[in-house]
Amino acid sequence: MKKLEKISVELKIVGIVHSQYKTTADAPRQGNNKISEIEIQEEYQQGLKDLEDFSHIHVLYWFHESKGFSLIVNTPWDTSPHGLFTTRSPHRPNPIGHTIVELVKLKGNKLSVRGLDAIEGTPVIDIKPYVKKLDVKIDSISGWIEKTNLHRS
Amino acid sequence: MKKLEKISVELKIVGIVHSQYKTTADAPRQGNNKISEIEIQEEYQQGLKDLEDFSHIHVLYWFHESKGFSLIVNTPWDTSPHGLFTTRSPHRPNPIGHTIVELVKLKGNKLSVRGLDAIEGTPVIDIKPYVKKLDVKIDSISGWIEKTNLHRS
Repeated sequence: MKKLEKISVELKIVGIVHSQYKTTADAPRQGNNKISEIEIQEEYQQGLKDLEDFSHIHVLYWFHESKGFSLIVNTPWDTSPHGLFTTRSPHRPNPIGHTIVELVKLKGNKLSVRGLDAIEGTPVIDIKPYVKKLDVKIDSISGWIEKTNLHRS
Repeated sequence: MKKLEKISVELKIVGIVHSQYKTTADAPRQGNNKISEIEIQEEYQQGLKDLEDFSHIHVLYWFHESKGFSLIVNTPWDTSPHGLFTTRSPHRPNPIGHTIVELVKLKGNKLSVRGLDAIEGTPVIDIKPYVKKLDVKIDSISGWIEKTNLHRS
């Protein structure tokens, strides 16, 4: 059976990132402590109801400046090549970024968040609640990353 | 300034879910303990290198049977309406699903995972490593969900 390889979709831009980082060259890495802002488009603002009661959220965004990808990649964290799906590289078959951030403040349609590794102008495509019961995997093992500074820092 | 509202993209189908759940009517909920399989398309298999050393992974998928959305929704967990972005409802502006699952086995291009809430045939659009250092938010507060059975179960 021939498999379907692609789906054509229109991703709705739910919000836009405002960051002190303007280009991919100075993009922050995951695990940073910087505050940035997500401005939710007004047509979606009602969907934020009750979000201020959550301390952390999942942010999904589109790496709009990502072009192409390799299945084996080098990362800043060690000198060995790794499978793409064991990394958070922005260069992926579908350049979707995912970061768990602290929700510092919600005011109207503006979210202040800590730790987002996305540059100015990045389109946000979804916000989901961080649910401790589902998302904390306290006994998890993080493969090659455990031997790097990312894990120890 | 008129804002951009949509981006037209072609999502690549990285893999397909095989599940005992065949329709949305009997779809499992997040937090289930069932084993399902993700079959990665062979052209992406090389990107799985080293993934077997990770105990948990993030799975992103496309809710291919989702149609439309409301910004205020009712959930199975309580009787109050909540903002969409505080829920994991499959009916979202961009119907992207996200679940953190246990990686039980990796053999060739087939991943056995525990806890995926996606039905048979669901297109998988990304796999990312669960990184304990980044993804465990042990002191997080889960808003209205903390008062429900989802949290207590």
